[in-house]
Amino acid sequence: MIKYFDYAASTPVSALVLDAMKSWQSESYANPSAAHSEGEKAAKAIQKARESIADKIGALPSEIVFTSGASESNNLALKGVAFKHLELKGHIITSSIEHKCILNTCAFLESIGFSVTYLDPGSDGLIASKELIAAIKQNTILISIHHVNNELGIIQPIESFGEIAFKNNILFHTDAAQSFCKLNIDVDDMDIDMLSLSGHKVYGPKGIGALYIRDSRGLGLVPLIHGGGQELGLRGGTSPTPLIVGLGEAVDSFPSEPNSNDYCMVMDSLNKLNFKRNGGSNVVPNIWSVTFESDLDVEKFKVNNWLVSQGSACNAMSNVASHVLSALGLEEAEARRTYRISLPPFYISE
Amino acid sequence: MIKYFDYAASTPVSALVLDAMKSWQSESYANPSAAHSEGEKAAKAIQKARESIADKIGALPSEIVFTSGASESNNLALKGVAFKHLELKGHIITSSIEHKCILNTCAFLESIGFSVTYLDPGSDGLIASKELIAAIKQNTILISIHHVNNELGIIQPIESFGEIAFKNNILFHTDAAQSFCKLNIDVDDMDIDMLSLSGHKVYGPKGIGALYIRDSRGLGLVPLIHGGGQELGLRGGTSPTPLIVGLGEAVDSFPSEPNSNDYCMVMDSLNKLNFKRNGGSNVVPNIWSVTFESDLDVEKFKVNNWLVSQGSACNAMSNVASHVLSALGLEEAEARRTYRISLPPFYISE
Ligand SMILES: Cc1ncc(COP(=O)(O)O)c(C=O)c1O
Ligand SMILES: Cc1ncc(COP(=O)(O)O)c(C=O)c1O
Repeated sequence: MIKYFDYAASTPVSALVLDAMKSWQSESYANPSAAHSEGEKAAKAIQKARESIADKIGALPSEIVFTSGASESNNLALKGVAFKHLELKGHIITSSIEHKCILNTCAFLESIGFSVTYLDPGSDGLIASKELIAAIKQNTILISIHHVNNELGIIQPIESFGEIAFKNNILFHTDAAQSFCKLNIDVDDMDIDMLSLSGHKVYGPKGIGALYIRDSRGLGLVPLIHGGGQELGLRGGTSPTPLIVGLGEAVDSFPSEPNSNDYCMVMDSLNKLNFKRNGGSNVVPNIWSVTFESDLDVEKFKVNNWLVSQGSACNAMSNVASHVLSALGLEEAEARRTYRISLPPFYISE
Repeated sequence: MIKYFDYAASTPVSALVLDAMKSWQSESYANPSAAHSEGEKAAKAIQKARESIADKIGALPSEIVFTSGASESNNLALKGVAFKHLELKGHIITSSIEHKCILNTCAFLESIGFSVTYLDPGSDGLIASKELIAAIKQNTILISIHHVNNELGIIQPIESFGEIAFKNNILFHTDAAQSFCKLNIDVDDMDIDMLSLSGHKVYGPKGIGALYIRDSRGLGLVPLIHGGGQELGLRGGTSPTPLIVGLGEAVDSFPSEPNSNDYCMVMDSLNKLNFKRNGGSNVVPNIWSVTFESDLDVEKFKVNNWLVSQGSACNAMSNVASHVLSALGLEEAEARRTYRISLPPFYISE
């Protein structure tokens, strides 16, 4: 039986979300910036979604800017800060196991004169606070380290990174595409200044995401998409009411229990095979990066006919060990025997 | 009876489009970059939509890059070219009656060292080719002039602008958010190098658009959203299959006949009032910018209870004459008596 176990790449849109989106597509379809009653109705629905998202991470509604997804949010965070320093440039600290959209943004910023330090994880996959502190320079303008790794499921100690950033008066951004709704996040407790999230990782629609931007530090980000004043001038483009309402509903209705059938099915199958789970002990329950011991185990695994990933979806087409597996020290041959099995995500109360 | 006549701000999603999107949300929801069968299925559906859009404007499928809408497309076009010239900077020519997303992007580029010429329209609302030619400098890197104006409905002679740009070896971009599907466009005949379009102006979903980028001139645009290699590396972010499929269906099923009830209703009502239509004779049939002769006419018009715009939707909140009406020479008092009535768009064969 073909089973989809690629939820870290993308989730289905839940029935509740589909239902919530419906009327905003063909009944109340006015531009939410319009001054008439239908426009105002859409704007209100957007505000409600904004409140749901803000609530989930302990932020204010005014601190949520809607984007097309976590990739755009990450670009807005990094370039938005960098372009403020276009003249004098500056130094950015990130890790070598970020999502490609962060790494490629950093490469671009390097190409125009910024400097970037890429922290390598230890063999446990964790970025060490000690190394972060050591990397800080006089001209460090931003620290950007993700929360949960999309290939390994490892949870980084972002509250420590946030504290270090705050103490050194440096902005801290985290890519929470894989942790939003799944783990407890409080932007104040964790000293997070910017946080990226995505709809299609939490049973919401594809093509919508958000960036949390702390109000009180007066970030004054340079917009990535200049527009007609939407989103407090920080992100142009007609606000996509159906997608935003869908994201809000996804947040409100995010499951707090695992789908136990799916989890049992995966555990049963893996228990019959020889493998090691990558990423140490501090991993989320819905992402399993497993390296099979032999090609025979791989063959046995493949009989399942599951839809899973080797590396992340965006690396899927290139047949090399992903940058994340390499950073973890996996050999080419091991990487080829490595699969990411990702299960339906749920909220993990601590 | 409340009637919606704000189609230039946003259209409903058509029943056919809704239907086409459906299965991609909760049945075939895999990440289209995934290497497994479900990912490939989504990628194929995206390719089909890409072909529909390319066909519509005489382009190749490989020349279509999906974005979140026309605002992002415009930003990608302008910044994508400008950032190639970040070191030496350069000169851009546009008009003073572009959409705010173009004008605000230009203002940003000016703030970092580029120079911009804003061509004013004549009293007929048209940008004169003579003035465009006169504005060209040695270091002009880009000409960006829209096709159909969103407030007035005026059709600019973009084929002349394209020819001028081509002869002078300058790139030509046009914002076709209001003309795509509605007017004939052939990027070769019109010498267009880049063209922006949007889904929610053509009965497609909000949150999706595209930028046509001519292959043969080797533009090498700098991406706006760096990502995981999607869209030939030009635009990061998980491709939103439902939105893209919806846009493709919107293009395929775009109506070729007006909704005559709506058109009759508007004409009947306007015929009883004193007004002048702004924008001269070269306007699209679905956008009516009308300035009523007196406050009494405005009152009579308002009795209709129609949902219309004053200025464009994004200017709706600020109670001043829009930059477009001002550029056309309208006084503040006239601008206050000016409304944009926009009807269901359809394809206008010439
Ligand atoms: C001429 C023009 N350009 C750009 C846009 C922006 O389009 P989008 O809402 O898809 O970003 C619009 C409409 O809002 C428009 O009318
Ligand atoms: C950690 C991480 N960051 C960013 C992204 C990009 O998200 P989106 O597809 O919403 O742009 C993803 C998923 O693709 C991810 O897992």
